[in-house]
Amino acid sequence: MLIIGEKINSTRKSIDRAVRDKDVDFLREEVLKQVNAGAGMLDVNCGTLEAREEPDTMKWLVKTVQDIADIPLCIDSPNWEALAAGLSVHRGKAMINSISGETERFKNVLPLVKQYNASVVALCMDDRGIPANKEQSLRVGVKLVSELIEAGVPVDDIYFDPLVRSVATNPETVLETLQLMEDMASKFNGLHFVSGLSNVSFGLPERRHLNRAYVVMSMASGLDAVIVDPLDSTLMALVYATEALLNMDRFCMQYIKQYQQGKLKVL
Amino acid sequence: MLIIGEKINSTRKSIDRAVRDKDVDFLREEVLKQVNAGAGMLDVNCGTLEAREEPDTMKWLVKTVQDIADIPLCIDSPNWEALAAGLSVHRGKAMINSISGETERFKNVLPLVKQYNASVVALCMDDRGIPANKEQSLRVGVKLVSELIEAGVPVDDIYFDPLVRSVATNPETVLETLQLMEDMASKFNGLHFVSGLSNVSFGLPERRHLNRAYVVMSMASGLDAVIVDPLDSTLMALVYATEALLNMDRFCMQYIKQYQQGKLKVL
Repeated sequence: MLIIGEKINSTRKSIDRAVRDKDVDFLREEVLKQVNAGAGMLDVNCGTLEAREEPDTMKWLVKTVQDIADIPLCIDSPNWEALAAGLSVHRGKAMINSISGETERFKNVLPLVKQYNASVVALCMDDRGIPANKEQSLRVGVKLVSELIEAGVPVDDIYFDPLVRSVATNPETVLETLQLMEDMASKFNGLHFVSGLSNVSFGLPERRHLNRAYVVMSMASGLDAVIVDPLDSTLMALVYATEALLNMDRFCMQYIKQYQQGKLKVL
Repeated sequence: MLIIGEKINSTRKSIDRAVRDKDVDFLREEVLKQVNAGAGMLDVNCGTLEAREEPDTMKWLVKTVQDIADIPLCIDSPNWEALAAGLSVHRGKAMINSISGETERFKNVLPLVKQYNASVVALCMDDRGIPANKEQSLRVGVKLVSELIEAGVPVDDIYFDPLVRSVATNPETVLETLQLMEDMASKFNGLHFVSGLSNVSFGLPERRHLNRAYVVMSMASGLDAVIVDPLDSTLMALVYATEALLNMDRFCMQYIKQYQQGKLKVL
């Protein structure tokens, strides 16, 4: 399971300030906490800055974070100039967050994926927005992934995001998302699946329980990467447990290692 | 989701003592705590007593627990005389724990299921023990449920237990169990699925994380009853969250009610 730490994101006020002030000490703490908690990759997003500043800031942010920790980054922006800037200074194999079936975005992001041999988050949407039902979702997803593969992107570099909605307003959304992942997996052998957790519980109280349950059941349907707060130790313990249960953790070695490091002591 | 509270079980020393001493006050607390925590049924087991005492004790236990709380019970014993004794004094619709494909047990428990219109836990095993692989499991399960239905037991009264093993020794067991539930559900429309949590995490540390993840993913594959400690409020919050995600909780009403009652405040 690839844990992508979500905390270096300027929609958080403290990160917005740290990025504007170039406060490396503050960022160091945010980076190291996530790495120590088990993140295998860090998402970096400075999208709250003005568009013309974002590329330079992203370049600085990528360099700064990788100077703090030798870890691959998930470069996160709707602005492809910011993506390009971040990629130009990234060491190792980056992930791009994200491409989609939207014409403009696809056209502008695909060359970056290829140029940098990056992996890429592929959002299940196109110019009409997020598909309204499961048949459309499957059609949009198949088209997007097929086009990436045809363009020469290895399937192993594609992280498909089924774009779950909020259960508060879309009661069928999780059932449809689980089915979509299973259908996509059967069509594209080796395709990865990624999800964030901000949508599924939107509008409901005590969202962490919904987010955790969603991660567990999604892993059983194929999810192998997740963009989360790795400091949520209850969630992380559940993720390690789920890997053990699904035979993704040979001899439960990882689970036992986490135990030995005292990381399963949450209630 | 049917939550069957597991705590009135004489394998717990405090319950063994309370049953032997007929300590109604102690039992009252154990019963009411579980009911207040959300149990919809209570398992009662006094199997640590000598076999010849167990029927009379079960009779006393069933009467005592139902005098404390007006709740249906899951009468739990490998001893069919104890099952018969408990059923003879039970008010309302009881659950029998359990029948299986073992010849002797099937022959002796089936008449009780029919006489008392009870629901019944049907363990996926026969005279050869627990099936060694998924093909055998499906064969044993189909035979058992078919025979119950042919004998006149409504499918809606059958709670099939796939008998998950420990992942520590059987790394494929959960994947096979999830598949078994899905296969059984497609063959028997309306069949229920139940599981306890003592096996899956056996031999591993910090077992609660494994148990909780197992409940969530099993619910996504059809589990609709579980024998658990309802005082594990983290587990209960996850169960309510899972029901909301799987569209088993219309308009998330139950989840919101739990929130309003302060029951989702666990970390």
